[in-house]
Amino acid sequence: MFEIAELGYSVSKADYLEKVPDLRTQLLTIQQQLNRFNFSVIILISGVDGGGKGEVINLLNEWLDPRIMRTNAYDSPSDEELERPKFWRFWRTMPAKGTIGIYVGSWYSEPIAQRVHNDTEDTDLQRQLTQIKQLEQELADDGTLIIKCWLHLKKDQQKKRLKQLEKNPETSWQVTERDKKHLKMYDDFAKVAETVLKETSSAQNPWRIIDGSNIRYSSLTVGQHVLDKIKAHMQMHELQQSIPAPSQSPEIIHGNQLRILDSLDLSLELDKKEYTEQLNFYQGKLNKLARQAHQKKVSSVLVFEGWDAGGKGGAIRRLTRALDARNYQVIPIASPTDEEREQHYLWRFWRHMPRAGRITIYDRSWYGRVLVERVEGFATEQEWTRAYSEISNFEEALTNSGIVLLKFWLHIDPDEQLSRFKEREQISYKQHKITEEDYRNRDKWAEYSLAVNDMVAHTSSQTTPWVLVEANNKRYARIKVLKTYCAALEKALG
Amino acid sequence: MFEIAELGYSVSKADYLEKVPDLRTQLLTIQQQLNRFNFSVIILISGVDGGGKGEVINLLNEWLDPRIMRTNAYDSPSDEELERPKFWRFWRTMPAKGTIGIYVGSWYSEPIAQRVHNDTEDTDLQRQLTQIKQLEQELADDGTLIIKCWLHLKKDQQKKRLKQLEKNPETSWQVTERDKKHLKMYDDFAKVAETVLKETSSAQNPWRIIDGSNIRYSSLTVGQHVLDKIKAHMQMHELQQSIPAPSQSPEIIHGNQLRILDSLDLSLELDKKEYTEQLNFYQGKLNKLARQAHQKKVSSVLVFEGWDAGGKGGAIRRLTRALDARNYQVIPIASPTDEEREQHYLWRFWRHMPRAGRITIYDRSWYGRVLVERVEGFATEQEWTRAYSEISNFEEALTNSGIVLLKFWLHIDPDEQLSRFKEREQISYKQHKITEEDYRNRDKWAEYSLAVNDMVAHTSSQTTPWVLVEANNKRYARIKVLKTYCAALEKALG
Repeated sequence: MFEIAELGYSVSKADYLEKVPDLRTQLLTIQQQLNRFNFSVIILISGVDGGGKGEVINLLNEWLDPRIMRTNAYDSPSDEELERPKFWRFWRTMPAKGTIGIYVGSWYSEPIAQRVHNDTEDTDLQRQLTQIKQLEQELADDGTLIIKCWLHLKKDQQKKRLKQLEKNPETSWQVTERDKKHLKMYDDFAKVAETVLKETSSAQNPWRIIDGSNIRYSSLTVGQHVLDKIKAHMQMHELQQSIPAPSQSPEIIHGNQLRILDSLDLSLELDKKEYTEQLNFYQGKLNKLARQAHQKKVSSVLVFEGWDAGGKGGAIRRLTRALDARNYQVIPIASPTDEEREQHYLWRFWRHMPRAGRITIYDRSWYGRVLVERVEGFATEQEWTRAYSEISNFEEALTNSGIVLLKFWLHIDPDEQLSRFKEREQISYKQHKITEEDYRNRDKWAEYSLAVNDMVAHTSSQTTPWVLVEANNKRYARIKVLKTYCAALEKALG
Repeated sequence: MFEIAELGYSVSKADYLEKVPDLRTQLLTIQQQLNRFNFSVIILISGVDGGGKGEVINLLNEWLDPRIMRTNAYDSPSDEELERPKFWRFWRTMPAKGTIGIYVGSWYSEPIAQRVHNDTEDTDLQRQLTQIKQLEQELADDGTLIIKCWLHLKKDQQKKRLKQLEKNPETSWQVTERDKKHLKMYDDFAKVAETVLKETSSAQNPWRIIDGSNIRYSSLTVGQHVLDKIKAHMQMHELQQSIPAPSQSPEIIHGNQLRILDSLDLSLELDKKEYTEQLNFYQGKLNKLARQAHQKKVSSVLVFEGWDAGGKGGAIRRLTRALDARNYQVIPIASPTDEEREQHYLWRFWRHMPRAGRITIYDRSWYGRVLVERVEGFATEQEWTRAYSEISNFEEALTNSGIVLLKFWLHIDPDEQLSRFKEREQISYKQHKITEEDYRNRDKWAEYSLAVNDMVAHTSSQTTPWVLVEANNKRYARIKVLKTYCAALEKALG
């Protein structure tokens, strides 16, 4: 597939100088329009060593307006990055909507390098590529334009380029021992790269392979390609605005999952004595387990969802009481800030991923997408139906990185909810918890029930099961939460 | 000074249980009012080992609403933190306005520990305390309420407490080798702590020393103290709203500094040939120096300020062309995001501090406070006059950590500006740079001149001098910028 980039394209200096001003004007013009559009642009510049990645990136930095663009270089990850799931470092630097991120080294670098050096097998590579495709798909679904450029050189050209660079005292620094080693591995590299490029070229996110033998040619080509892609993406966006969204619903299987929640035995309860005993027992146990987990750098992510007044706060407090305040963080999910709004909806959850051995507790979570956002119409049907797989991929990324992930649904019935609302209104320091909105939401109990059932049906897997908590009795619920977390930690700690 | 906390205060269990609900109600009530107020709350919980810090913090976490509170634990810094100025880790986790941050371990931990272990001298400690006082003063000036609690134990009590903890298998983990070592150093510790507490207790940010021998007593006392302080702070805030700000201006010495800018020789220029030669020379030189700096982990922070159309962008591009795009970041400063608006005005600059060996280029900067915010009235006179010392302290923190800091003022005269505006209007890809506002700002040339002169007079020091760049001739200006940065790097690299 690299043949098309081996025809020795080049652009003369005169030609180049003639073409640059116009290209630059167009790039700047289109860039100024970007902030009117609700999408971000990711430009990946990859390719063989000596293919001129650095030069091309420097030129892009010169041609484009740095005010809406950032260059992100991903070399060796920091310890804060190493302590989190692999893609965290990319999420944390994701460009906001209306802006451009140039990625030097990206989610492709490590998989390619590992395979070339035989640190991984083909099956590992395939798995990594699947994750990459999922990531790119999710970003594209969110409107992100991903422009992927591969700068290619033939073997002899690479050799020549590296020699040239080395000979010149001004550029010799660019040639590292690693490059020379890579040169010897050219054939292996080309083979792996070909697989990767083929596998990850989709209609939506295709690779553009560019002859890197002439910097003027490759710079102009990348610049023109970026321009064309952004233009086309804008047109598509405008077109989509004018066409109503497809009215038919993507296939969501409701139905007998309804029984999932209905099958819960809400009469389960604990009396005060049992509760106190078990509370002491499990808090003591959790305390020990959490300390071990901290030492062994096993992180946890705990998600609390449930009906209003379902007892999330109380359950969280019984749990945190057993923990060292230095090691956990409770993240209440309210409406997003404007920085969060300018990103993919999962971004604001990625940003709170715990460091190694720590615990993040989400009081409400990414499931808002398929619950409140679905029921209240804040997300389109396309968006919330797509979210099931986005969430599954996200959670898989967490569990793959060794995070203990637990998702609790605190389930009560409408009568219990009503009596808790009334009760809260009596207790002064709980009054703030009850608003008009809480009563309004009760009218939508059936719609929320459907959404919850769909959620559980679509996002409960072997590795990321939902823990459905019978919560009409607070004592029972709290103990179940504690017990479940203890068991999960015990399992993770072996 | 610890005597007052050695009287053996204690609260019976019955008393405690009676008092908690009311305290909790009041804490929750006041907390709900917090988001109406434009200030943040920092609660520092420090003290002797075994003084019950963990218990108190856990209780605060239980009593307060986690939705507007975070507990930040500062144990060993991560590599990302080590690569930046010391206070960066505190700035990155600063609570937003209307929220509470509980600090476990804080800017006090390291200075105290270092002095106790004789890793530092008294003079080092004094220097550190000065920095702490400056930080707290700046936060307080911004409205932040800092509540500092010190949990004290007598020597024999500490011994007893550690023994108790150790004997109980449930709590023995809390007693580390470090604690036992600390016990032996009780007297040294108490002596250093006393100095620190005395030095850093101000009317605005006093320490509250609390007997830690009875957890019920200390928890109630901390809780009550937090409540009282927040209440008082709210009252003060409301009072200040109703009283007009003092009309007399803090003392700002204008005057003959005006000559600073006027003395610049704006006729300085370079012809095209000289320029091209020197550009090549200094870009080559900078390229080498920047690589060395990257290897030696010497970071740079470059600030570009100047008149509109003064040539900041062009100068930055000539500079970045010599750099590896992976190692620098251009941060354009526009209006703050809402997350930034909820913080001290320096926060948004702290967040972009470069990692070791990298370069952050600020295209406009924290000087906006004393320039545009002053002239346009976005900052009160109190705020912008205070900013001179805030900025000096901030920059000192950067240079103290080894960062190469350069501040460029690109100076042109009004005629040159006008002709550049006209020129920009002719060039299609530069048209977006010219707005009505640019012309309006010209009418305020005299006011801006005064502001610039004051800025230079107040914030130019031996270690953080302003580089005034004669920029009527773009070529001359660009070379001066390049040359200056080269010289600064050469000096830093020895």
